[in-house]
Amino acid sequence: MTTFEKVMAHARRTQALSQVMGRLGWDQETMMPRGAAGQRAEEMAAMEAVLHARRSDPRLGEWLALAQAPDAAGQAQLRLIRREHERTIKVPERLASALARAASLSQGAWAEARARDDVAMFLPHLREMLALRREEAAAIAEGGDPYDALLDDYEPGITGAEVAKLFDALRPRLRALRDRVLGASTPAPLRGEFDPDTQLALARDLARRFGYDFARGRLDLAVHPFSSGGGADARITTRIERSDPFNCLYSTIHETGHATYEQGVDPAHALTPVGQGVSMGVHESQSRILENQLGRSRPFTGWLFSAMREAFGPLSTPDADAFHAAVNRVQPGFIRTESDELHYNLHIMLRFDLERDMIAGRLAPEDLEDAWNHRFEADFGVAVDRPAHGMLQDVHWSIGLFGYFPTYALGNVYAGCLDAALSADTPGLEASLEQGDPSPATAWLRWNVQRHGGLYEPRVLIESATGAAVGEGPLLDYLERKFTALYDL
Amino acid sequence: MTTFEKVMAHARRTQALSQVMGRLGWDQETMMPRGAAGQRAEEMAAMEAVLHARRSDPRLGEWLALAQAPDAAGQAQLRLIRREHERTIKVPERLASALARAASLSQGAWAEARARDDVAMFLPHLREMLALRREEAAAIAEGGDPYDALLDDYEPGITGAEVAKLFDALRPRLRALRDRVLGASTPAPLRGEFDPDTQLALARDLARRFGYDFARGRLDLAVHPFSSGGGADARITTRIERSDPFNCLYSTIHETGHATYEQGVDPAHALTPVGQGVSMGVHESQSRILENQLGRSRPFTGWLFSAMREAFGPLSTPDADAFHAAVNRVQPGFIRTESDELHYNLHIMLRFDLERDMIAGRLAPEDLEDAWNHRFEADFGVAVDRPAHGMLQDVHWSIGLFGYFPTYALGNVYAGCLDAALSADTPGLEASLEQGDPSPATAWLRWNVQRHGGLYEPRVLIESATGAAVGEGPLLDYLERKFTALYDL
Repeated sequence: MTTFEKVMAHARRTQALSQVMGRLGWDQETMMPRGAAGQRAEEMAAMEAVLHARRSDPRLGEWLALAQAPDAAGQAQLRLIRREHERTIKVPERLASALARAASLSQGAWAEARARDDVAMFLPHLREMLALRREEAAAIAEGGDPYDALLDDYEPGITGAEVAKLFDALRPRLRALRDRVLGASTPAPLRGEFDPDTQLALARDLARRFGYDFARGRLDLAVHPFSSGGGADARITTRIERSDPFNCLYSTIHETGHATYEQGVDPAHALTPVGQGVSMGVHESQSRILENQLGRSRPFTGWLFSAMREAFGPLSTPDADAFHAAVNRVQPGFIRTESDELHYNLHIMLRFDLERDMIAGRLAPEDLEDAWNHRFEADFGVAVDRPAHGMLQDVHWSIGLFGYFPTYALGNVYAGCLDAALSADTPGLEASLEQGDPSPATAWLRWNVQRHGGLYEPRVLIESATGAAVGEGPLLDYLERKFTALYDL
Repeated sequence: MTTFEKVMAHARRTQALSQVMGRLGWDQETMMPRGAAGQRAEEMAAMEAVLHARRSDPRLGEWLALAQAPDAAGQAQLRLIRREHERTIKVPERLASALARAASLSQGAWAEARARDDVAMFLPHLREMLALRREEAAAIAEGGDPYDALLDDYEPGITGAEVAKLFDALRPRLRALRDRVLGASTPAPLRGEFDPDTQLALARDLARRFGYDFARGRLDLAVHPFSSGGGADARITTRIERSDPFNCLYSTIHETGHATYEQGVDPAHALTPVGQGVSMGVHESQSRILENQLGRSRPFTGWLFSAMREAFGPLSTPDADAFHAAVNRVQPGFIRTESDELHYNLHIMLRFDLERDMIAGRLAPEDLEDAWNHRFEADFGVAVDRPAHGMLQDVHWSIGLFGYFPTYALGNVYAGCLDAALSADTPGLEASLEQGDPSPATAWLRWNVQRHGGLYEPRVLIESATGAAVGEGPLLDYLERKFTALYDL
């Protein structure tokens, strides 16, 4: 065995164990009995300790110092393995283990607190998660910006300052468009009651249409939809509301975007660091482009209108145009995951600023509710009516995901760039979408983005797929084009 | 930290990881997408390597040499940890890992082979599993009997020769009783079609009645019912046949016996070696006594007759006596898991002899089908009609479980001993069972057996619960009493 092969054998096994963690997380959200939360926390902590020990293994450090990659893919593997090793050896095993245990318990507390609208119940957990993550960030940053250290784990190669600059460029045109849209008359929503089993059957059909391979995944229900795992076992979840089928259907398309990314990576890289999505931002670009640029397009909603009439009988929207308007209805709502395309990034910017303040120590958890509510009213013009509609709505902070939120908006920006390029490359796309067939687009994404896995850094990947620099322009152009037409502005 | 505390901290984490393996196994049988089998094999092998490394950890060996237990429970912990450590260091990590990977792949192949009745498809896997297990057994036995080395993992403290002696004592009276029963007229079976959802609802109700805590477990469907996990997460599975509701209902009661054993261990021992069932034989005694001595008793089937009429409408059995006879119908069938109480142990004795021969190298996998079919016809008077009804029916050998089968019959023997003692101790039991309430019996089992977990060696545990030496007598007395009455002999 060469030193490089030793590194890869080690990495493969680490990757397999990391997939096991993914299974546990999936199980916890879909199948686990309620009374098992405490024991599961111990199981997760034990797994985390194993992973931490592997990633920080001194033998791995020695091999990495000597290993010679035989090719470009090998170089990418070494780059990813080195980055993880270097991050990990800065975090004491005690801290890594405490984080895993605290996250598991905190997530349960968050779910209960959200159900009861009880901020006080969640605060001790938020306080602990924040303290642990700040400690971790400081250890990794080594004097640098702690927030950047966290962000780098989800979106390698971008800083908080760069994100802030991008958001500053995005905000004015986005708000101006949003304000114009809200000044116009609001289209009617889709009304009615929609049978849950029929929703789920249609969701399965949509997942298949958008390229999901059920032989290497499954669809279940969860409180907060997510995708989990990779390679030959990439699972998705959705949720069902009787009165709002779009919640189920578009959550499913969204998670299908994540899961097809994982399923689409070249199997030659299976169970290696390169064999998975390269960053959370690029991941989100795959889910958002399926959900929005493709799934909420006029051609595709035209097909979906027929499919839903077939599944549910007559709809409250009289024709395909009214249906399309209902799908793309803009309204300042409380909930990020149910938000329209114009408000979504405003939700993210709010969270980005608040979590940066928390990590910097400028905002204490006990002041978060006030800060959230104040900022929300300023940005959305509506007062938060209950914590479940405010700071308790997202799972992220409960499990320590600080630095993660901006990747959602980055994903939207990348999706804008990719959509411009793939539309130019794929002349027959509209006609195909009208038939309910997004495969020309999903094939383009698989070829230009997904199959590469972690071979290239995020922005390099997007720029080589699109042939242009990453920027907010294409997203804003797309949104202005779409909503100007839709709202007759 | 004392050395003892170090050992225990190490053991707790190992136990947590071993629970994770349980979750993966459960997932594989209930939820996993088909295309994930290869990747799952890698995941299991990686976990197995981690567990192997922990169990054979040289630091653990050093601590074990020095550790002083503070009390009797601590002594039991050390005894169990030492046994596991000593077994593990004899097995090279390469072999442990190969076993896990091979088992995972082999299980999938077995399931497909069984579905297709294709022995040839399964043979290469059986050959590999047998070779790997023989290698392992030889390493552990160190010149002793390899079969004993395997058996000792499932039923510590008993040898193949002791089992053979017990079976020799059991066989004549059992066969004589069986022959007398088959000479009498056979009662009518329960006929009809039984709605699957209603079967499952009744199965849930039965699990609860027999003490299963759904807050710390769940019930799903699987091809071959099993229970999995322990402590706060002990899951069970069942299967449903439209034309045979007893399959679902009694499988559920059976697995409830296993799972309530795990749920019934004193929580003070949670996630430690003592905190789980002590052996497969004692485990089986808990499942069999619930299923047979309690669940198939005249008082309980009287209640079940009413419950099933309420759930399904009129039954083909006209009254509670006919229903009881149908539940306890004796017939030489092909399938062990569907077998009646008289034939069950004959199924086990067949497998015990064949697998002992395979481990000893006296029987090659390619000769197994002939050997099975020949022996089956001799014991049961019927020729095996297809491999799925013969050597392909059980999952065990596909995953390397050689030495496991005899624990089923040991469980029946223990159940006989426990039933005699608890019946004498619990005067109101029959009246309670007539009301569909087995709780006086399950409470007795929890107090006298289950709560102790691994504190005592299997036979010590049974003998202290019953106040008598373990032997085949009580089981045979019970069977003769029951079937003499039932068949009017």
